[in-house]
Amino acid sequence: MDQLNQHISKNKEQYLSELFNLLRIPSVSADPAYKKDVVKTAEFIRDKFIRAGAENVKICETAGHPIVYADKLFDASLPTILVYGHYDVQPAEPFELWDTAPFEPEIRITEKHPEGAIFARGACDDKGQMYMHLKAFEAMMETDSLPCNVKFIIEGEEEVGSKHLEAFVQGNKALLEADIILVSDTGIIANHTPSITVGLRGMSYVEVKVTGPNRDLHSGLYGGAVANPINILCDMIASLHDCDNRITIDGFYNDVEDVSDADRKEMAKAPFSEAVYRSDLEIKATHGERGFSTTERATIRPTLDVNGIWGGYIGKGAKTVLPSAAYAKISMRLVPNQTSEKIASLFQKHFESIAPESVVVEVKPHHGGEAAIVPTNFTGFQAASMAMEKSFGKKPIPVRSGGSIPIVALFEKELGLKTILLGFGLDSDLIHSPNEHYGVFNFFKGIETIPLFYKYYTELNK
Amino acid sequence: MDQLNQHISKNKEQYLSELFNLLRIPSVSADPAYKKDVVKTAEFIRDKFIRAGAENVKICETAGHPIVYADKLFDASLPTILVYGHYDVQPAEPFELWDTAPFEPEIRITEKHPEGAIFARGACDDKGQMYMHLKAFEAMMETDSLPCNVKFIIEGEEEVGSKHLEAFVQGNKALLEADIILVSDTGIIANHTPSITVGLRGMSYVEVKVTGPNRDLHSGLYGGAVANPINILCDMIASLHDCDNRITIDGFYNDVEDVSDADRKEMAKAPFSEAVYRSDLEIKATHGERGFSTTERATIRPTLDVNGIWGGYIGKGAKTVLPSAAYAKISMRLVPNQTSEKIASLFQKHFESIAPESVVVEVKPHHGGEAAIVPTNFTGFQAASMAMEKSFGKKPIPVRSGGSIPIVALFEKELGLKTILLGFGLDSDLIHSPNEHYGVFNFFKGIETIPLFYKYYTELNK
Repeated sequence: MDQLNQHISKNKEQYLSELFNLLRIPSVSADPAYKKDVVKTAEFIRDKFIRAGAENVKICETAGHPIVYADKLFDASLPTILVYGHYDVQPAEPFELWDTAPFEPEIRITEKHPEGAIFARGACDDKGQMYMHLKAFEAMMETDSLPCNVKFIIEGEEEVGSKHLEAFVQGNKALLEADIILVSDTGIIANHTPSITVGLRGMSYVEVKVTGPNRDLHSGLYGGAVANPINILCDMIASLHDCDNRITIDGFYNDVEDVSDADRKEMAKAPFSEAVYRSDLEIKATHGERGFSTTERATIRPTLDVNGIWGGYIGKGAKTVLPSAAYAKISMRLVPNQTSEKIASLFQKHFESIAPESVVVEVKPHHGGEAAIVPTNFTGFQAASMAMEKSFGKKPIPVRSGGSIPIVALFEKELGLKTILLGFGLDSDLIHSPNEHYGVFNFFKGIETIPLFYKYYTELNK
Repeated sequence: MDQLNQHISKNKEQYLSELFNLLRIPSVSADPAYKKDVVKTAEFIRDKFIRAGAENVKICETAGHPIVYADKLFDASLPTILVYGHYDVQPAEPFELWDTAPFEPEIRITEKHPEGAIFARGACDDKGQMYMHLKAFEAMMETDSLPCNVKFIIEGEEEVGSKHLEAFVQGNKALLEADIILVSDTGIIANHTPSITVGLRGMSYVEVKVTGPNRDLHSGLYGGAVANPINILCDMIASLHDCDNRITIDGFYNDVEDVSDADRKEMAKAPFSEAVYRSDLEIKATHGERGFSTTERATIRPTLDVNGIWGGYIGKGAKTVLPSAAYAKISMRLVPNQTSEKIASLFQKHFESIAPESVVVEVKPHHGGEAAIVPTNFTGFQAASMAMEKSFGKKPIPVRSGGSIPIVALFEKELGLKTILLGFGLDSDLIHSPNEHYGVFNFFKGIETIPLFYKYYTELNK
């Protein structure tokens, strides 16, 4: 691998400069205003695959944003790795909270990233991590060291629930045939503490609307006599948790995986400081379901969070309006055995049932995905663990994450394949938030680790 | 009065055309973006007073938007009426709910206004009603029939709590010396059922901010373990009412006026149909404090309404953010004996006390005003009643309103004067809402009734 590492070293500036160009295109999949930029990003990725020496490179249209496919198949007797990534990003709002413009990448030193971090929307999630794979592949091609077959699918709708990926996978099962899936869209505990994500939460995302009177009213003339949709929405949202911070939706916990005490004890061994956690977030207290630790609340327990709420007058100054309607976006993180569709339907039924007669409630399911568990006793995990141990000089810790990557369950269902979550981000990288960034160390550590995974996985499966 | 009425009849088109020009200037006092338009509106009013023959016409600067003063004093032995009005308007948002542009007035027929209604922000509140006074004065001047002295103050900050009026009144007590105050900023029950407002609610308006973590977080990685400020804000707002819809703030009801059963019975005689009320608003049920009727809830009982709420991602699509902060604008309508400052301070104390340790709460009082009662046994009310009886052909019903006109209590306190609320709007005029309008019938009925008030009040006080 020496020759490969030398090649990577030599090209660091080039890799960074290309990543910067990629980050400059605002591929916000949620907002139709950025549709052209999303397409432009797909074309950027396609062109880089072609230049890297990939074959069958194509932009596959879907009913939504396109998927980029590329491969390099040279020996059917060798294993095939299917790499998945996404080139779309979260909306960058609120823009005013960014220290530098979200689509003008810049490298700055941070406490966690003394070697510098790239600040931009998508720097970590997932353009930066996805691009490590493209560059690792290019480096292996250029040094003639690709040890196995490889396929890539890079989609543009991950941040809006991978809406059209399922149809694409179902319609292209032969094209996507492989032995293992490799994804970098997760993180490690710290730059000196590598880890591999072995559990993910699922998600149900809904939008609700509470309508009262048929028009905005003067709160003086009508206030007190007519249900205020904002007050009612607050009542309804408040009632979704009980005093133990358990979710009150009928049947919500029915299918929840019961994690054994032994497993909980094992999890508790991962390095974690509640004091550091609180001080990092500048909060006096954590807050969650009674009977579980902070780590457990954020990983093995289901949750319900309001991700957005709005209604009435939200401009400057005061306006005495009793609005016609109020709105909220609500997501529930799910754990293994819960299914997102069932939970969305339980939510809808419950939310409609608790609405007082004075309002009308609409629940619109947005998207969902299932939780996933990655086994640690097969060659995929072993190869990943060996690769990280080699590049970091330390054995990685298997951890469960609170985030959701619904495609993991999708790939298992449709292709019968396990996914290895070989991510390099840090929890502090502010993904989905203003000032998202990704360590320069992490970017290159990824490019260095990925070929090791190819190597060990091929050796273990020869 | 025949000559006066003929004069008014002859000038109807001119009056309407001037009102349209006034309505075209977007004098939104809450929004700094409209500062120039607010000044332009004051100048418009000033110019019209000069043309109408008023004296001492001037634009009085305040620390906020200016006040227009004008008078016509010709005989110290005659009474002096002080007319108050406001030329500022509520914000017009949400613009997309207006059938025609809010600052491009247009006359359209409505069910309640078969003779046509003027659609524009401020058409009723209060440009249309204020302008009736200017035109009634001009008509009396032009027909040589002004029966008494008159002073005018037209302010530009009513919709933002008349912030600088108190200082102006305190600093100009001699200038404002008068016998009675006359205001048209209220309504009548229906065009065939005249009424006079004899009670108003006060108001405390506050803005709250609930802050959790120091930055927006990914709801997958942190959800369930960190307090979500939106969920917490909803909990806190929900807890402000109990299951009887009574407000739970400690001491909130301590000073509330106890309306006697006899008075409640008297109030219940005013024409009101719950079925028509519900059908007008297209709601299945009304909603309010247990033990009180809809009319009582909206007039003699204090309330707490959220006028605006926001936090997290409120754009299109889905974003899985756990926001750093959530916000709400909350107003409480108050009844006689409650004081707005005390209530604001009780709110603040209570709201801070119910915040969980996991968040930080800020309460910022916006503005307030006191409730008011107009006695029905003095010449001011009698003159108003006679004027309406003459112009409508029907004795007006004294009613209490749920709205707030804090200047009524202010004038009583600072000038020792009672206020007559001789308003001509309808509840259905959508003031503060999209599609605000004011009946053409009502506009001219006002211009016709105002001189009658001058006449009767002068006769009763000679």
